[in-house]
Formats: sequence, structure tokens, C-alpha cells
Amino acid sequence: MTDKSDPTTTRRGFIKAGIAAGGAAAAGAAQAGEPDPLITEVQDWASYTGDGVDATPYGMPIEYESDVVRRNVEWLTADTISSINFTPIHALDGTITPQGCAFERHHSGAIELRKEDYRLMINGLVDKPLIFTYEDLERFPRTNKVYFCECAANTGMEWAGAQLNGAQFTHGMIHNMEYSGVSLRTLLEEAGLGAAGDLKDKWVYVEGADASSNGRSIPMEKALDDVLVAFKANGEALRMEHGYPVRLVVPGWEGNMWVKWLRRIEVTNQAIESREETSKYTDTLEDGTSRKWTWEMDAKSVVTSPSPQSPIPHGAGPLVITGLAWSGRGSITGVDVSIDGGKNWQEARLAQPGDDKALTRFYLDINWDGSEMLLQSRAKDSTGYVQPTKAQLRDVRGLNSIYHNNCIQTWWVKESGEAENVEVS
Amino acid sequence: MTDKSDPTTTRRGFIKAGIAAGGAAAAGAAQAGEPDPLITEVQDWASYTGDGVDATPYGMPIEYESDVVRRNVEWLTADTISSINFTPIHALDGTITPQGCAFERHHSGAIELRKEDYRLMINGLVDKPLIFTYEDLERFPRTNKVYFCECAANTGMEWAGAQLNGAQFTHGMIHNMEYSGVSLRTLLEEAGLGAAGDLKDKWVYVEGADASSNGRSIPMEKALDDVLVAFKANGEALRMEHGYPVRLVVPGWEGNMWVKWLRRIEVTNQAIESREETSKYTDTLEDGTSRKWTWEMDAKSVVTSPSPQSPIPHGAGPLVITGLAWSGRGSITGVDVSIDGGKNWQEARLAQPGDDKALTRFYLDINWDGSEMLLQSRAKDSTGYVQPTKAQLRDVRGLNSIYHNNCIQTWWVKESGEAENVEVS
Repeated sequence: MTDKSDPTTTRRGFIKAGIAAGGAAAAGAAQAGEPDPLITEVQDWASYTGDGVDATPYGMPIEYESDVVRRNVEWLTADTISSINFTPIHALDGTITPQGCAFERHHSGAIELRKEDYRLMINGLVDKPLIFTYEDLERFPRTNKVYFCECAANTGMEWAGAQLNGAQFTHGMIHNMEYSGVSLRTLLEEAGLGAAGDLKDKWVYVEGADASSNGRSIPMEKALDDVLVAFKANGEALRMEHGYPVRLVVPGWEGNMWVKWLRRIEVTNQAIESREETSKYTDTLEDGTSRKWTWEMDAKSVVTSPSPQSPIPHGAGPLVITGLAWSGRGSITGVDVSIDGGKNWQEARLAQPGDDKALTRFYLDINWDGSEMLLQSRAKDSTGYVQPTKAQLRDVRGLNSIYHNNCIQTWWVKESGEAENVEVS
Repeated sequence: MTDKSDPTTTRRGFIKAGIAAGGAAAAGAAQAGEPDPLITEVQDWASYTGDGVDATPYGMPIEYESDVVRRNVEWLTADTISSINFTPIHALDGTITPQGCAFERHHSGAIELRKEDYRLMINGLVDKPLIFTYEDLERFPRTNKVYFCECAANTGMEWAGAQLNGAQFTHGMIHNMEYSGVSLRTLLEEAGLGAAGDLKDKWVYVEGADASSNGRSIPMEKALDDVLVAFKANGEALRMEHGYPVRLVVPGWEGNMWVKWLRRIEVTNQAIESREETSKYTDTLEDGTSRKWTWEMDAKSVVTSPSPQSPIPHGAGPLVITGLAWSGRGSITGVDVSIDGGKNWQEARLAQPGDDKALTRFYLDINWDGSEMLLQSRAKDSTGYVQPTKAQLRDVRGLNSIYHNNCIQTWWVKESGEAENVEVS
């Protein structure tokens, strides 16, 4: 407690001790005997009361974090009416994505619905066609679970080579939120599925209230499994751009099936073969044929830091390598990290045990020698699947694909600590 | 697919079907044969493209949700410099609290620190006093976990009787976020605890950089257990009012120990007996003596809906009763709900298994007969503890207490669906 006798002098002493121990030189640190302007001029917070905090409006990020926002890619989305805004995953930690910076993709703009005007129709092969108001939905038993939502086109620009310089742009069409809503099974059973006969070969066709409608067919087996009609994400109402007031949550399956502004669910005896599941969201192979019904998102991972938008700000020594891993088929059981482009692998530490169809945060703590690295991560899931290299994917799928690129990503980390998106052979 | 031939007519038919089935009359619903203005005039979203979505700035809640914000209580906090802003728990679902509406309590305003100016000192009985920059902290191994943070004064106004009419005000000094940071143990070990000798009777004294400093003593056993030096909440940087850029996270313990703008950690051989742990945050008993060192938050729960700010908008029939439960001593193992003021209890459904020192969401789905209810919830935790009634608490603690009121809350739900905060004997 000796530091209380002459705090200014003693603190300056400790700052020097800290510099010596940590190796991180503070800009403008004082010489011994001189007043340290950091202490005398900057760190004066205890000498006055801070700002009052107004209860309302909504609490915003501090001004210094104003670069931690969604961003788009100009050449990719020339018009904001049909656009993509990417999650700043390079700047986040943990697994939850705040709604305010959670990626969103819209095909015909974002529409504005009031809860009072909202209706959800269930029709087709049901015993009793129904229309639910928002208030009706709130009267059914609810469920809660964290799920990731990934656009099928995430990493799609990378098929042809390293294109986009930043994890936000290569892997940021993903978010991970805690959803509250009603099981789709509950609503289908309310309408009655007797009229549908044998459910094995039945489908539901789901569409949104916006001009794109973004209609998609979902096999009945999935519809009765874990699909949610959701009205809250991370506890709050959905943002307008995420489908306020109601969207579909299709755990583990590609994001375009998570229909926003959900207005209709039709039980059918076949897939509708809509535009969104024929001309789009199929994977064209080398021979010109296309894979379709590729709904599940394969296991995938990416190092979020260091990465092109999150360079190493210090020199050699202790370095935290961190990233995200996920699988649409189950939970993440392990992540390996390589610093030499895949020649050698080390097992990363999972921050928490893998959670079904949700993001998992991994860390690898290394003592960086300051030389360049080819940084990669490789996810493994509960089905035994291992994330492939880009070469392995191309062997099977050729070069024509856009969607479902889950290959291992490489960042070239230079001696300066800066990083670039590269391919390794 | 017959509805596609004449969608307007067919949809109107289904709206009538829905009304008949759900019993919820849509305001302004059309008579048979008349055009329904809801469809012809309001639900026109598919006839135009919606608004473009700008990538930046930060995505805000839709205008219709502008009442889901933190609020204060004027008579309780006359000045915003030393104030409390309560979480709108009555309007949220799930368990995660978004930072933008997560409760905050400050004693000397909220101060504005840049990461570059931030320093954390560890001194006292350590081998090597250290000062860490923000960047230094990012180089240590990180951990991630969801924890609740509850102010010791939460529900404190209710000792003397039912005072505040709304779950936001009676129980809203709580939030639940996923924290990312460095274990305090890691930093203490970096400074070296050899100088402290036997750690059994040692303490750490933690203080913030604001004028209140809000210093608190924490036993070494807890400091070396699960305490975090955190810099992210729900993936993002902390909000200014939550202690940007670094706060302490003391899982399960009262919120005032979660020091914001954390600047110093001193290893001591005794508790400092600061203002915040003597004249404040102690519980005065009937005989005038005070309990102190009451750090752990006892198991507690509250029904968030229906509640005074979240009345039942419909009549008798299916009703979702929901709320939150938590324990500072472990996980929630069960929640019972009573609709008759504690005479009879039903076991609620937990949305997910109870998570250690984190909020648990519970639901009870009932068929409400439309008569008045005295709605209560009762939490049970992994230590076997059962949340007490207010009478049981008063028997032990008298009427002088403010802090650590974890008694069972009662909402009187009237036939109209409106609710009031009441006491039952």
C-alpha cells in the first residue's frame, strides 16, 4: 500500500515496471523524474464526475468503436435494394452476434411491418387452413436456442482464388443469435396434418411478405424437427432488416431458407422448384450439371484474428490466435490450427464445448517468433466430418461453384503483423 | 395451391377461418364479400421494393419497439450522475440481454476512456508490480462465458411493501451477457503471488478509474476462481456505461463488485473496508447489527410476462406465463409457478438446462380461465436452496434491509388482463 503516499511518483514507477515486463512501450511514456503526461494530463477521470447516462434512447457503442459495423462490398452489391451487409467478425469475440452488427441479405429491400398488420397463413394440405395474428403466435408454447445463420454464398467469391481481403468479407455472411419463438411443428399440428396423408414425401413451401417473397421448399421431416417461427433474437424483437416481426429459423440450413417477414407456409406434396431453389442456390459442377437441395451447411471455420482487418499490433512474443467454427450437421468437436499452411497442426482450445448448430469460439495461444505465418484453421464436427482444403473441394466440385464453399482459409501473416488473403497449393 | 388462382378472395377466406379458429378478432376485419382493407390497403409490401439497408451505421431497433429501452425511476435517482437504468425485462424473451438495453448503475457518471490511455495496475503483495496496457491484456489467454450481473439493491425497494409497478423496476437491475476476457488468476500469476505468502487469508482490492473508484475487497479464493478481466460483452466492446474498455466480472456475486473502468488490483492481507463495503452494501437487521460480506446473490426468479408492464392482451384461453430465474451459487434446477398466491404450485418448463451463474428462462403454458390470478414463481438451485417468501425473509432479516431481497414476487393479474404489484400474506 506504499503507493498511496505519493501516487503520482509511484504510479510512474509502475508504468516503467510494466513496460519492462510486458515489452510494450507506451507512446509518450515519460523519462524517470519527468511528469508523465499520460498521468498528469490524460488519466484525470477521477477528478470529475463523468457524463450522466440517460435511460433512453437505446445504448449505443462508444464512438471509438464506430468502425465495428456491418460493411458491404461495392462491386458485389451495387444497389442497396438487393444487398449484403457483412458481420465484422474480425473485431468480435465470444460467439453471440449483436443484432446491430449481424449480417443481413435482402433481395427486394427491407420492408416495414407493424405487428398489428402482421398475418401468418398456413394452408395447402392441412385439415384446417389458419391465419395467425402476431398476438396469436405469442399464445403458443415457446422455445429458445442459440443458432448460427450462414448464407450459402458465404466465402463464395473465393472459389476462383483469394479475392476479398478480410474475414468480414470472406466469412462475414454469418451470425449467431439466441432465438425465441414457436416450433413450426406446433403450428402445423394446430392446422392439422391429417389431410397430408403420409408425411414422408411431403414438403412445406415458405414465403415472405416482401416483393422477392424468397419462397423455398423444405422437406416435412425438417419442418417437424427443429424449425422455429421466431420473433425474438438475443432477447429483443428482430431488427427490421432481419425480418421484423417474424422470421423462420431453419437450424443448420442455408440462410436463404430462414425466410424473413414470414407470411405463408403451404403444405405441399412436392417441392415448388421456385427461382430461389433452381436458378439460385444450386452448385454447378465441372460437367455442367448442378447439385441442388444442398441445404445443410458443412462444417467450417475461420481465424478471425490475426487476419487482414485485425493485424498483430505488437512484435514477437505471446499471441492469441482466435476464430470461429460451426457445423450445420451437429456440434464442433475440435479445431486444429496451422501456422505453416497446413504442414503441421496444433489442437486449438474451445472456449466452451461445441453447441449444436451454433458458433464455437476457439483459441490457440502461441509464442510468436516474429516470422511470417500461413495461418489456417480446420473444423471437425460430431459426425466425424473434417473441413476440406480448397484443392480437395475443387477436385469434387470444379471451379463453377459459388455456394457452399467451406474450404480451409489461409491468411498470410507477415513479419510486420499485417495479413493478406492468399491461397496455398 | 388453389389460393394462387385468386389470392385476394382466398386470403380473405382464410382470414375468416383464422379468426374462427383462434378466437382473436382482427380490428377492422372485413365482412364476407367486402374487400378487406388490411389486405387491399395495408398488406401491400410485395408490390414495391423495400428500403435499402445501409451497412453502416449500427443497426437500430425498428421504430415500433422504441419503448423497449432502459428506464429509471425518478424519485429513486434524481440525478443522472449517480443513477440506475433498469433492463426492460418485461419485454424481452430468451436469456441474453442486448447491451443497448442492459441495466447499468453508476456512482459518479460514466467516464470516457480511449483504449490507448487505458492502464491496469496490479500492485501490493506481488512479486513484481505490473501495469498492463489494453494491448497487453489482449495477449493473454482468453475465456468466454455467459454470466448474470445483478445489483445487490435489485428488488430492494420492495422490503417495505409493494412499491414499484413493473418487473423492469422491481427486478430489472440485472443483465446476462456473454463475456470475453482474461482470467484474473492469469494476471495475478503474471505479477507473481509468492510475496503474498499463504493465500488463504489474502484479498484483492479492486478499483475503477472513475471519481467514485467504487473500491471493493474480494477474497483471494474467489479472485483465483472464476473472476474475469473482461473487454467484450456479447462479442462487442463494452458500452461506455458498462465500463469501456475493461470491467471486472465476478460471477454470481453482487454487481457493485463488477468494477467498471477497472484500473487497479492490489493484493492485500486484509479487506480494505471501503465505503462501498461498510456504509453501503451491507444488510441491517432488526437488532441494528448489519450483515456484511454478503457477496453471493441468492437464488431468485420473477415472472416477466404477464406483469404490470406486460398485461394479457387477450381473454381467456391459451396463455404463456414466462420469466427468469438465476442463482449466484450455481445453476437453476427448477422453477415452480403458482397462480393462486402460493397455495398450489406447478413445475415450469426450463427453455434450456440451467447454466452456472447465468439466467434461465422458464415457461408455463396454461389454459387461463379468465379469472384473476396471484402469480408467483419460485426458483430452486443446484445447492438445494429454494427461493423464500417475503414473510420468510422478514422473519430472519426484519424490515431494515435494502440489499439482497430475493423473495418470491407476486403479480395480481385481474380479469382484464392487467396486473399489479401486490403482497400476499
